[in-house]
Amino acid sequence: MSATNQKQGTVITLQHKSEILENNPLGDKFIRDLIVYLPPDYDEEKFYPSVYVLTGFTGRGKMMLNDSAFTPNFAERMDNLINQGKIKPMIAVLPDCFTHYGGSQYINSTATGNYEDYLVKEIVPFVDETFQTIKDKNSRAVMGKSSGGYGALIMALRHADLFGLACSTSGDAYFEHCYLQDIPKAFRAIKGDPSKLIEKFWNEDAKKGKDDFSGLNMIGMSSCYSPKNAEFDLPFDLETGEIRADVWEKWLAHDPVRLVEKSVESLKSLKLLYIDAGTKDEFALDLGARIFCKKLRDFDIPHIHEEFDDGHFNISYRQNRSLELISQYFESV
Amino acid sequence: MSATNQKQGTVITLQHKSEILENNPLGDKFIRDLIVYLPPDYDEEKFYPSVYVLTGFTGRGKMMLNDSAFTPNFAERMDNLINQGKIKPMIAVLPDCFTHYGGSQYINSTATGNYEDYLVKEIVPFVDETFQTIKDKNSRAVMGKSSGGYGALIMALRHADLFGLACSTSGDAYFEHCYLQDIPKAFRAIKGDPSKLIEKFWNEDAKKGKDDFSGLNMIGMSSCYSPKNAEFDLPFDLETGEIRADVWEKWLAHDPVRLVEKSVESLKSLKLLYIDAGTKDEFALDLGARIFCKKLRDFDIPHIHEEFDDGHFNISYRQNRSLELISQYFESV
Amino acid sequence: MSATNQKQGTVITLQHKSEILENNPLGDKFIRDLIVYLPPDYDEEKFYPSVYVLTGFTGRGKMMLNDSAFTPNFAERMDNLINQGKIKPMIAVLPDCFTHYGGSQYINSTATGNYEDYLVKEIVPFVDETFQTIKDKNSRAVMGKSSGGYGALIMALRHADLFGLACSTSGDAYFEHCYLQDIPKAFRAIKGDPSKLIEKFWNEDAKKGKDDFSGLNMIGMSSCYSPKNAEFDLPFDLETGEIRADVWEKWLAHDPVRLVEKSVESLKSLKLLYIDAGTKDEFALDLGARIFCKKLRDFDIPHIHEEFDDGHFNISYRQNRSLELISQYFESV
Amino acid sequence: MSATNQKQGTVITLQHKSEILENNPLGDKFIRDLIVYLPPDYDEEKFYPSVYVLTGFTGRGKMMLNDSAFTPNFAERMDNLINQGKIKPMIAVLPDCFTHYGGSQYINSTATGNYEDYLVKEIVPFVDETFQTIKDKNSRAVMGKSSGGYGALIMALRHADLFGLACSTSGDAYFEHCYLQDIPKAFRAIKGDPSKLIEKFWNEDAKKGKDDFSGLNMIGMSSCYSPKNAEFDLPFDLETGEIRADVWEKWLAHDPVRLVEKSVESLKSLKLLYIDAGTKDEFALDLGARIFCKKLRDFDIPHIHEEFDDGHFNISYRQNRSLELISQYFESV
Repeated sequence: MSATNQKQGTVITLQHKSEILENNPLGDKFIRDLIVYLPPDYDEEKFYPSVYVLTGFTGRGKMMLNDSAFTPNFAERMDNLINQGKIKPMIAVLPDCFTHYGGSQYINSTATGNYEDYLVKEIVPFVDETFQTIKDKNSRAVMGKSSGGYGALIMALRHADLFGLACSTSGDAYFEHCYLQDIPKAFRAIKGDPSKLIEKFWNEDAKKGKDDFSGLNMIGMSSCYSPKNAEFDLPFDLETGEIRADVWEKWLAHDPVRLVEKSVESLKSLKLLYIDAGTKDEFALDLGARIFCKKLRDFDIPHIHEEFDDGHFNISYRQNRSLELISQYFESV
Repeated sequence: MSATNQKQGTVITLQHKSEILENNPLGDKFIRDLIVYLPPDYDEEKFYPSVYVLTGFTGRGKMMLNDSAFTPNFAERMDNLINQGKIKPMIAVLPDCFTHYGGSQYINSTATGNYEDYLVKEIVPFVDETFQTIKDKNSRAVMGKSSGGYGALIMALRHADLFGLACSTSGDAYFEHCYLQDIPKAFRAIKGDPSKLIEKFWNEDAKKGKDDFSGLNMIGMSSCYSPKNAEFDLPFDLETGEIRADVWEKWLAHDPVRLVEKSVESLKSLKLLYIDAGTKDEFALDLGARIFCKKLRDFDIPHIHEEFDDGHFNISYRQNRSLELISQYFESV
Repeated sequence: MSATNQKQGTVITLQHKSEILENNPLGDKFIRDLIVYLPPDYDEEKFYPSVYVLTGFTGRGKMMLNDSAFTPNFAERMDNLINQGKIKPMIAVLPDCFTHYGGSQYINSTATGNYEDYLVKEIVPFVDETFQTIKDKNSRAVMGKSSGGYGALIMALRHADLFGLACSTSGDAYFEHCYLQDIPKAFRAIKGDPSKLIEKFWNEDAKKGKDDFSGLNMIGMSSCYSPKNAEFDLPFDLETGEIRADVWEKWLAHDPVRLVEKSVESLKSLKLLYIDAGTKDEFALDLGARIFCKKLRDFDIPHIHEEFDDGHFNISYRQNRSLELISQYFESV
Repeated sequence: MSATNQKQGTVITLQHKSEILENNPLGDKFIRDLIVYLPPDYDEEKFYPSVYVLTGFTGRGKMMLNDSAFTPNFAERMDNLINQGKIKPMIAVLPDCFTHYGGSQYINSTATGNYEDYLVKEIVPFVDETFQTIKDKNSRAVMGKSSGGYGALIMALRHADLFGLACSTSGDAYFEHCYLQDIPKAFRAIKGDPSKLIEKFWNEDAKKGKDDFSGLNMIGMSSCYSPKNAEFDLPFDLETGEIRADVWEKWLAHDPVRLVEKSVESLKSLKLLYIDAGTKDEFALDLGARIFCKKLRDFDIPHIHEEFDDGHFNISYRQNRSLELISQYFESV
């Protein structure tokens, strides 16, 4: 309820029909809301840099507009930063890559759909056609937290031709620390039958316990990292909880820490690569960030690494830091 | 992401300018969003019963439209219930009674503003003028959870002429159990200076600890129950934590449990008085509900009392039960 | 496993047969272990000051000798302090005032037995007869933590003629804060039948939940504060959880905060009255200590009040501070 | 405080001077308490079977005699079981294999000392010389919980010629699940300097946080599994938290799950191999037990596998089940 004598941007919700997501294996919607934030005084004669903001697991773009008592939502945050002169006017895009299993990790999977393609081949071109964006990688950034931070790293690793700036906050990395700890909990929540747990989440009346979220997370990640046609393999034995080495190998092939060496030139081409995480991160993603940045240093890849004194949750205020860096590193217009 | 071959209602956000809230002591906004849900196939030729839905502390109407992965928001919930034939088409009103201190308890206070008047003297007439409501108390219901459940009880106790049906889920009651336990935590969070804690909540970067929410709650309640002109008294000594008997007395004068005897005829006039709470409620509001219902029984006031196996948080699915009862008890049209 | 080239005291376990506890209503043992610590080089020709150390709820003297990996037990602690010259050689007495309900609060009760008499009329004389104590109140101290701190306060309030020095760490005080918060939890654990919960505690195989300890505590305190012949009244209604004002009144009559005014001269006669508590005490006993000390100040009763940065549990290291003060304030011999 | 008209066994505390532990690298004591429980009516003319009971990390034999309000200590438990006829009279041995780092895992290590040798080459012969034991592997059992359960498995794997019966409750197994989850916490607690954390544990006044126990555990296990002369390697990089593959490999060489294949004939020679764990074990040792038992099945090794509905802590009541099985499987005398 702060005084609001400031100029407000415009939030537009478009219905985008995806060809790539049509016939996705989960039967998830292929016509989706695409949220676009246009800065105050948006001028159809001008061109603006753009930033794509990716949500974490179980999130989608729309949620960043949720109202909260003391915390600005994403649009209010943009208004604040622009009005205070902390960032340049820019267009922000909040895509929806949610799935029936809770998320897509922004990658292609035979079990969920081709969300990486969806983002880079459909959403980016569509936004560029529809809005006054500067159509240049050095004026196009991607950022996100948690699974959204993972998505930002994937864009940096594989689509540096599209996104010249990438910021990952608490992004999934070093899977031994961020995922293995969930296996025992997932084992208990899944009780031999992943489909029952998924049903439970889609049944509003069913009470969800703490382990259930670990179970959901494990299923969601499996559907992205170890799909098997339209199904998926869990990385552990349903009878004993023993890690399945063959499946785990597939997971590790998606670990940003392991992907650096394959994308050295791409990563070096970035104008900005920013990595941060909280030193109390419940999924040890601060260690993931340290290990990822160690690999970057090994290959002389320029980057900025920061830590902050907080955990994994309720840290949307960290978006300010990413947005300010992005604004600073954007090509001057 | 359920199939949505169902008819959708319409969500309207009106800007309502309040005379009653103008010049409120906290300088909070007096032009506020008023969210109104109109049922599918809303027909300007027909008339509909209406339900006012009150949010808990730190909430406001808009938040009930927040998007969530697995839980329908309020509008989606209404769509579901109406499409499934579980409730009659009705108009739902989601007012905003938030304040700088986190809430108003839907009562008048010299420290926050006259939110009780705002609701009954401005919002209800405004809604009745603007929409096709049935202008009769037996077609007008109020419901809410937590502080919103308290608000619903206050309406039942003092405005049964306006609201003929009231449903309180986990409503604040029996203050000894729901508030006293917060005093030690509030003592530690407030550290002798309530204003600093409030500042902390309005400073996004400041980290909030667990006790801080107890502190905020204690301040919020004090501003409603023990205002002192534009300021307020806390119910405990800032040096020792000792309960201030005089202030606590003022609080108890607002306890629904103590208000029953003053409103026996009003309460008896209600078509529906429904009280529920979870048997794991972190604020012992299931005990509050039991004690409140004991008072109702003492005065032969008809009511329905139910308990459910859950805590205080993440229980929006309980709205279904209230809405279904309300629908059932509305005058048939 | 520190080097132990230090002199060791002697721990003696005596079997003391109590006439006062014989025929106690709970059928608890009346022949009990009495643990006495004699300092290194204890000399039958000399006389030593003595300190009585009272355990918390569910404790008894013997437990202070329990072995622990990194923390000295009471005898090792005494050895350390004496060898380091931090305290004078003294005799320490560790009585057993445990009951079937978990404890006695060191007061007389028709429901548990006369443990206050047991301590002051039997144990003290017995120790004085058996060991080389200095038989003078100014060479006899009492100390304890939690319910043992309460016991120490009771001795200070009512038996200052016997104990001239008293130290209470986190002692039960200001019952509104330390006990009321337990009622909802106790309500849920007791489920209408206190005897079943007690059975559960005495059945090793039965799993105890967190609320169960609140239930046990509430029963234990009721047996001390609100006995009814050989039974007791709980301070809340078993059907609704409402506080029973008449029973609660009986409890408050035992609150140290309320007892100060009745014992002003006794308290003033003490050579040492030391009160401390941790500022994170889970039962808000730091607030209890502040309020108690405020009453002392109101009556100009000399005392030392300290706070430390810790909670209620695992704070046996605080015994050092009490023992050092006691040693310092003992009459020089 | 149950009635005790039952016969009591005798607890003897011997001082045993170890040649094997003399000059141990940590300077820990080599003259240690050895606790031996002799059954009621112990008859010097008769011979008794014996059971060695191994404590968990940070434990030592003496602690099993600690007094507790509602739970029998080990001697009382033996008395109860023998008096009730649930087990035969037997001698129980409670050794002390504690170290400055918290424990020895009952194996030889250049960093802590040769505790495996100590147990099998010194303690067992010493007990057999000193007491009326039946000197036969089929009348000698070993049991333990947590690290003590690990110790029991090590005895079964490598010393089946000495111990013909072995019971492991929640024994450390499948190190990926039971230890890896501790690395991030240990990383934060150790802060680059393991010796400082150890100092903190030996400084009674220093407050220990929750992560500190993970750090201690990681140090303790490193000193046993990956010693480097008198020092040890931690299994993670102190700068980034990355797992050190070479060190981790050394750990896995000590994992019971990996040791089965090397000891198939030994394991098959056992009269009793009993494995249990709680299905809420905080270190996932129920999964460890399942995986271990899967390996046993793969090699047709007879065993009994049970699960119980509890966690890792406060489960000493499970000793009854092990003791009863041991009694049942002992050679009849």
